[in-house]
Amino acid sequence: MAKCLVAQSEGPSTTVNATLAGIVKANQLNHYYDQVLGGLNGIEGILCERFVDLTNMSEYDNRILCQTPASALGSCRYKLTRTSIQECDKLVKIMHKHDIEVLIYIGGIDSMDTVAFLSEYVKEKEIDDVRFIGVPKTIDNDLMYIDHCPGYASSAKYIAITALQTWLDFNVYTRKEVFILETMGKDAGWLAASACLSNIVDLLVLPETVFDETLFLSEIKKCIRKKNKCYVVISEGIKDINGNYLADKKMSAANKLKNLIIDTNTVSRVKVMELSSIQRCSASCQSLVDMDEAFNIGLCAYMHSLNAENNGYMVTINRKNTKQYDVEYSLIKANMVINKVKTLPKEWILDNYQGISQEAYDYIQPLIDKKADIIYEDGLPAYIKPYYIN
Amino acid sequence: MAKCLVAQSEGPSTTVNATLAGIVKANQLNHYYDQVLGGLNGIEGILCERFVDLTNMSEYDNRILCQTPASALGSCRYKLTRTSIQECDKLVKIMHKHDIEVLIYIGGIDSMDTVAFLSEYVKEKEIDDVRFIGVPKTIDNDLMYIDHCPGYASSAKYIAITALQTWLDFNVYTRKEVFILETMGKDAGWLAASACLSNIVDLLVLPETVFDETLFLSEIKKCIRKKNKCYVVISEGIKDINGNYLADKKMSAANKLKNLIIDTNTVSRVKVMELSSIQRCSASCQSLVDMDEAFNIGLCAYMHSLNAENNGYMVTINRKNTKQYDVEYSLIKANMVINKVKTLPKEWILDNYQGISQEAYDYIQPLIDKKADIIYEDGLPAYIKPYYIN
Repeated sequence: MAKCLVAQSEGPSTTVNATLAGIVKANQLNHYYDQVLGGLNGIEGILCERFVDLTNMSEYDNRILCQTPASALGSCRYKLTRTSIQECDKLVKIMHKHDIEVLIYIGGIDSMDTVAFLSEYVKEKEIDDVRFIGVPKTIDNDLMYIDHCPGYASSAKYIAITALQTWLDFNVYTRKEVFILETMGKDAGWLAASACLSNIVDLLVLPETVFDETLFLSEIKKCIRKKNKCYVVISEGIKDINGNYLADKKMSAANKLKNLIIDTNTVSRVKVMELSSIQRCSASCQSLVDMDEAFNIGLCAYMHSLNAENNGYMVTINRKNTKQYDVEYSLIKANMVINKVKTLPKEWILDNYQGISQEAYDYIQPLIDKKADIIYEDGLPAYIKPYYIN
Repeated sequence: MAKCLVAQSEGPSTTVNATLAGIVKANQLNHYYDQVLGGLNGIEGILCERFVDLTNMSEYDNRILCQTPASALGSCRYKLTRTSIQECDKLVKIMHKHDIEVLIYIGGIDSMDTVAFLSEYVKEKEIDDVRFIGVPKTIDNDLMYIDHCPGYASSAKYIAITALQTWLDFNVYTRKEVFILETMGKDAGWLAASACLSNIVDLLVLPETVFDETLFLSEIKKCIRKKNKCYVVISEGIKDINGNYLADKKMSAANKLKNLIIDTNTVSRVKVMELSSIQRCSASCQSLVDMDEAFNIGLCAYMHSLNAENNGYMVTINRKNTKQYDVEYSLIKANMVINKVKTLPKEWILDNYQGISQEAYDYIQPLIDKKADIIYEDGLPAYIKPYYIN
């Protein structure tokens, strides 16, 4: 009874379930594993043997799972490290007990760290009948050695659409006003930068460049003088000259900037919009490229999971050097991506908060170009009820 | 050279441009007016003779205008009253100067007030060659003598979808947590109530019922005890026992409730999401019923504008008493809707913040049932560049 266990971990995304659907589908086509189990709430739930059987998921459920945002298996923030050897031991015992050959772990940097650590742990212990494969997912798009992370494209598309629509709304009155849209992105500006694809952003403030109050206010003034309005997009993670986040526990970066603009009498009316969790779960704006790639990376992870030599590897996406956008999938060691952050290349960021370069546009555009076809039921996007809810 | 002038006023909506498109299309089919002019930024711009010629809008532009959110002609908050007789005088002179026979004014309560006042003003002055027609629009859905206001259905659909998607996201971790979604709605709970169509709302707090701290906290505790999570939806306009808004200049109602929950040690983790302007401008979630009706009410307004006897009237929507949802349009005096607010019927609101009754569901469901087919360009919903931008 060889079994494959799949789990999801860290912040959810719009397409993290498409990867799960890809893995389940691969086994239905290939039948290597007798069962595909879902582990609930990542490592946390696996350690409590909380499993669901996904082996015989219907064609329709598989399709709907692809468009269901947020982790259908639930998630956790828990990470296995050198200090949790006992739990590694317990995990392997549970895998043995349930005839689980492989754990495919879908998540961000910490999840790849867990995959790397577990694979080293079993190698050291010379346990050769279990293995661990990582599948990346993060809307922040800040993983190294991958062209872009599954999840990013849908969030980028949502942000570009939201920027355009709120800009249309923001402009209807003649009053002098600043709008500040705050996106996620603690250390990298990929999400904020995607707003520029709407072609309406006046100023873009990213974590990649030091925030300069004087320059920022002067650019606001210039823009207001020209058209009475200024539409600003910022990352939550913008930092001052000392490397400290502008945001603190009590106030978001956007509200700090709002106060700065008002307190310096630059402009008296400032509207703030923080996108909150909707930027990572909007099925209604799902990118087709993202949905397809998230599904395909699941298929690939499954195929690679059959080979014991791939223990400790992560599936990655490489963009082909073709005129028409295309990608291929390959493997890298999961430990290669940990403790690193991929930021926007400096040369992609224009001076004076003027947005992004043509290279940056060309990088993002194909990712958001097409919209996934979403099935609606009773007026709402159809979804799979999360497996962790009874 | 008989001309028709159209303008938009007050808060924008997702479908206020579909009404404009309907008026323009009606004249292309009917050719009564030599020109259809758009007045920029409502009464404010009309008084400065800021017009655009919309007569020969292309078929494609008309289609795209229907799906473009926010007032393409710009808007204003200005209202003509007894204190602005000089401006009424000026307005009529401008209409005469430009051979404008009729002003069709699309907006909320204040705009209907303006229509009512201007029509009385010209009747008193025995000016019989200009007339004024009102077309309602407000996402708040709080106008009397209309089944539902154009603009409401799309916002309701957006809110129900957003509630569902953020609920999926909110549930992925096992931690004990409250989520508070704040919608617009100062005096009526129509928007907040629409979140219930997602069937995931645990507690709903509306402006129609006095906010009772003790009851609210006890319901939060009950829900948390049952499932560790509680998804709350509130209107921005909820009020205490003295009729005062919970929100003040510094803090939203949602954040007040967050502090209440945390300060009373009810639950230590509370996430707040304020929908801001996106709830009134999300083309990506536009309701088909809303888009069609907003267009049709424009057609009707045009037809009724041909008759001088309709001076001072507003087009309204009546739901037919048929099994399948259907509506008809008729006229009422614009002054009937002013100084009144249509709230949710008390019997539609369940006790203890438990949501809405079946009647309320049956009222909202057909409005959000179908999604408008949106045309995309380069990955974003196609839109008409606002006419007030050069």
